[in-house]
Amino acid sequence: MLYLIGLGLGDAKDVTVRGLEVIRSCSRVYLEAYTSILTVGKEALEEFYGRELILADRETVEQEADEILRDAAVSDVAFLVVGDPFGATTHSDLVLRAAKAGIQHRVIHNASILSAVGCCGLQLYNFGETVSIVFWTESWKPESFYDKIRRNRLSGMHTLCLLDIKVKEQSIENLMKGKKVFEPPRYMTVNQAAEQLLQIVQNRRELGEELALTENTICVGLARVGASDQHIAAGTLQQLSTVDFGGPLHSLVISGCMHPLELDMLRLYAVEPSSFDQINVEDSSTYLSS
Amino acid sequence: MLYLIGLGLGDAKDVTVRGLEVIRSCSRVYLEAYTSILTVGKEALEEFYGRELILADRETVEQEADEILRDAAVSDVAFLVVGDPFGATTHSDLVLRAAKAGIQHRVIHNASILSAVGCCGLQLYNFGETVSIVFWTESWKPESFYDKIRRNRLSGMHTLCLLDIKVKEQSIENLMKGKKVFEPPRYMTVNQAAEQLLQIVQNRRELGEELALTENTICVGLARVGASDQHIAAGTLQQLSTVDFGGPLHSLVISGCMHPLELDMLRLYAVEPSSFDQINVEDSSTYLSS
Repeated sequence: MLYLIGLGLGDAKDVTVRGLEVIRSCSRVYLEAYTSILTVGKEALEEFYGRELILADRETVEQEADEILRDAAVSDVAFLVVGDPFGATTHSDLVLRAAKAGIQHRVIHNASILSAVGCCGLQLYNFGETVSIVFWTESWKPESFYDKIRRNRLSGMHTLCLLDIKVKEQSIENLMKGKKVFEPPRYMTVNQAAEQLLQIVQNRRELGEELALTENTICVGLARVGASDQHIAAGTLQQLSTVDFGGPLHSLVISGCMHPLELDMLRLYAVEPSSFDQINVEDSSTYLSS
Repeated sequence: MLYLIGLGLGDAKDVTVRGLEVIRSCSRVYLEAYTSILTVGKEALEEFYGRELILADRETVEQEADEILRDAAVSDVAFLVVGDPFGATTHSDLVLRAAKAGIQHRVIHNASILSAVGCCGLQLYNFGETVSIVFWTESWKPESFYDKIRRNRLSGMHTLCLLDIKVKEQSIENLMKGKKVFEPPRYMTVNQAAEQLLQIVQNRRELGEELALTENTICVGLARVGASDQHIAAGTLQQLSTVDFGGPLHSLVISGCMHPLELDMLRLYAVEPSSFDQINVEDSSTYLSS
């Protein structure tokens, strides 16, 4: 049996009781190490689980799937994924390979940022399509995520923005030299995401477009959701570009049309509680006129 | 401290290790009992947790919030919710009351159907707005959920449909007599949801509307996601109206535009594997022409 086990969002203790039982009983345990991270490292997980973990980066999963699945028809293999196992496509690929080899699979679910984001008080039912915001480079500054946020906003929906993660990236120099030397991992902050969005707002304004969000649109920044030091802050896009959220992982939500109860919840996390209601009135007018 | 603790989707062992620790250390433990159910009852949870649970139905949470929060500023109270704690609005209300009383809260996240639905192989990033399908009565047959599905389909997005749950409902007769006698709980099946949708498709066809989904649209039925006897089946809306999915809880997904990898995953769960690809070709043409 191939077990795909979600680890949740915080640290080692966020695994489920069933998940922990399975981890301890499997013959081999892989830890997926490229789409996300926990607030703790591999060693802390190994100590808590009492098991050695085999790191599986993107290359391992794509090129060594046969090794991961070896003997899984007759023994149990666990594949651990931060969050819930079906956030990323690569795991579909592993399941399909298992099915082709006649190996059964079972999923042990856990919290994912896609539902845990509800802790900020915005209703999950009112979220539209989730978008990914990628790191801009000098020569590549895509704006497609803005258009998805715009579409959600025009329908009154909130947007969860997942922020870019660069793990095991090679510099162009090392890539050309064929050197397997990797850059330090980079995790996009709420500040960086907000800055890129502010730049797009400015670009669109210069083009004379009707704006679906502005510097004053209410947004929510979330960091380390589920961990003991999680940080949530609600404010304008402009405000969130300067709030210090601390270490990774960060996520950003762009609000849509808000129910009074949703506003009451966001007020708990307001960057500037005194001006929060006024901001929202101004923002709503921007939103409704678009 | 008020702890809002997600229990996940299957049975007692789907609580997280941290969640279990907190449950065992709190002075009072409430179990939210109206928006969802686990596959096991209160007694099984009490035995596994080693704690007495106080059932909190809608009335308790809305009318006795002060009792739930009693002493929570100086001791720890746990409020257990099936899935993840922020699926339903009522928990925002409890958090707001806590905040007003100067009581801190902490969320212990867990799997929610809103992200666990990814196990069928449809990518979570490609889901639009989530909809709720309510039980029709003789005189009340709302169709608003169809229009939301339609909007998602036109954007190529999948739609997760949460199916109605009727718990502690009173008959009109008992309500008029003031008798606190409750009807047996009712959980909408995939079959019932599919039948209501088929009826709407028929209604819209008679009105001459261009259809955003038809009897042949590929849908996915899911029952008891995360439990050992979970059941997933992919087929046309018509096919899913007759597949036996067993006991609650059920959910229904209406597909949008599908990536080949998503189709490969759905094929694993096809009601009729031999005709699945042909169905999709026919359905895609319906979809693309709308």
